[in-house]
Amino acid sequence: MRDAYHEELDSIGDGLVEMARLVGSAIGRATTAMLDADLKLAESVIEADQKVDDLQHDLEARAIALLARQQPVATDLRIVVTSLRMSADLERSGDLAQHVAKLARLRFPERAVPQDLHATILEMGQLAQRLMAKAAEVIVTKDVDLALQLEQDDDEMDLLHRTLFTHLIEDRWKHGIETAVDVTLLGRYYERYADHAVAVAKRVVYLVTGEHADELQQQDIQSVTGAEGV
Amino acid sequence: MRDAYHEELDSIGDGLVEMARLVGSAIGRATTAMLDADLKLAESVIEADQKVDDLQHDLEARAIALLARQQPVATDLRIVVTSLRMSADLERSGDLAQHVAKLARLRFPERAVPQDLHATILEMGQLAQRLMAKAAEVIVTKDVDLALQLEQDDDEMDLLHRTLFTHLIEDRWKHGIETAVDVTLLGRYYERYADHAVAVAKRVVYLVTGEHADELQQQDIQSVTGAEGV
Repeated sequence: MRDAYHEELDSIGDGLVEMARLVGSAIGRATTAMLDADLKLAESVIEADQKVDDLQHDLEARAIALLARQQPVATDLRIVVTSLRMSADLERSGDLAQHVAKLARLRFPERAVPQDLHATILEMGQLAQRLMAKAAEVIVTKDVDLALQLEQDDDEMDLLHRTLFTHLIEDRWKHGIETAVDVTLLGRYYERYADHAVAVAKRVVYLVTGEHADELQQQDIQSVTGAEGV
Repeated sequence: MRDAYHEELDSIGDGLVEMARLVGSAIGRATTAMLDADLKLAESVIEADQKVDDLQHDLEARAIALLARQQPVATDLRIVVTSLRMSADLERSGDLAQHVAKLARLRFPERAVPQDLHATILEMGQLAQRLMAKAAEVIVTKDVDLALQLEQDDDEMDLLHRTLFTHLIEDRWKHGIETAVDVTLLGRYYERYADHAVAVAKRVVYLVTGEHADELQQQDIQSVTGAEGV
């Protein structure tokens, strides 16, 4: 039987999973809104972000109340503090999905993304959504192997990001500067979204093992030259 | 006389001020490195970010130890939790300064910023540095009026950002796509840097008043149409 204290801890975990679910859905729908120039869908994503913000505030208030009332130590303390960080990552991911939707709205009825980049942006959006679904699964299962797998998926995002930039700076680019600016920002939004999903998973690794994910797989880290600067 | 507990709390505050000082210096030096195409300076900024990361880890460890050992409640608890968030903001600001320096390095010996945008980028860099200096002062003084002032300064950053974009999408733009991409990302880095400085100040307002800064000055918020999307 769980006591009230652990029930509260669990409910914070549930809140995180719900946030991850919402922001995962948001990036998928924002990408669709962008590629289809669907104004209504874009606006629904923009509005729905309020729900994520509310969840974060609620979750933070509950975490702080738990700290004050129960004064957890050791692992339990680490769980609560780490939950606060995860909720910040998820809230920020929601903002980034909202940015994508706002760009779709800003360019409506035009499409922000030219046809020859649709496939790449679609893939970035799908990968972002998958990363967040895995992050949610990691929160639920505490599966360290799955968490470490997210870093590999993130390398894929870096490659897609690189593809986008290569396309942009090719001499054949014929879509003008405004579209280049839009595509540059979009690339950045997806990349940062993925970073936050990976950060959530890494924090679970830290909770489970007490070690930072980076230390566990130093050998796996692939340096993608220059990628960190874009 | 201060007891050991409050000395620990104070030392966490000192750590935050030191982080703010370092990342303030970093954005100033990164901007100079960018505008002068100074490779050595860029590399020194890139290396120095490690110090910021180390400070953050150290500060977090001390904050968590303080929570475990002293089990603060009420205001003291809020100070510790808020300090964790501020340190995350400051660490991220350091990353953004590092991104600017990395772009300077990537384009060396060329200059990433064309001459006709030097003044705007210089102004963004200086404003970013000033915002962080004020954020540090707010941490020290807990001056709510000064904290609210940062939001006004941030409006200035939004205007500069807008100037940059207007320049980019003008028909007269003659610097090519790669430079447009660089300038787009630079604009984003400075804007996000400023956001984090403002967030630090807002968190102090929350500590002092128990209210979120947004609620205190709802009337002052200026909606800069579309700005949030870029």
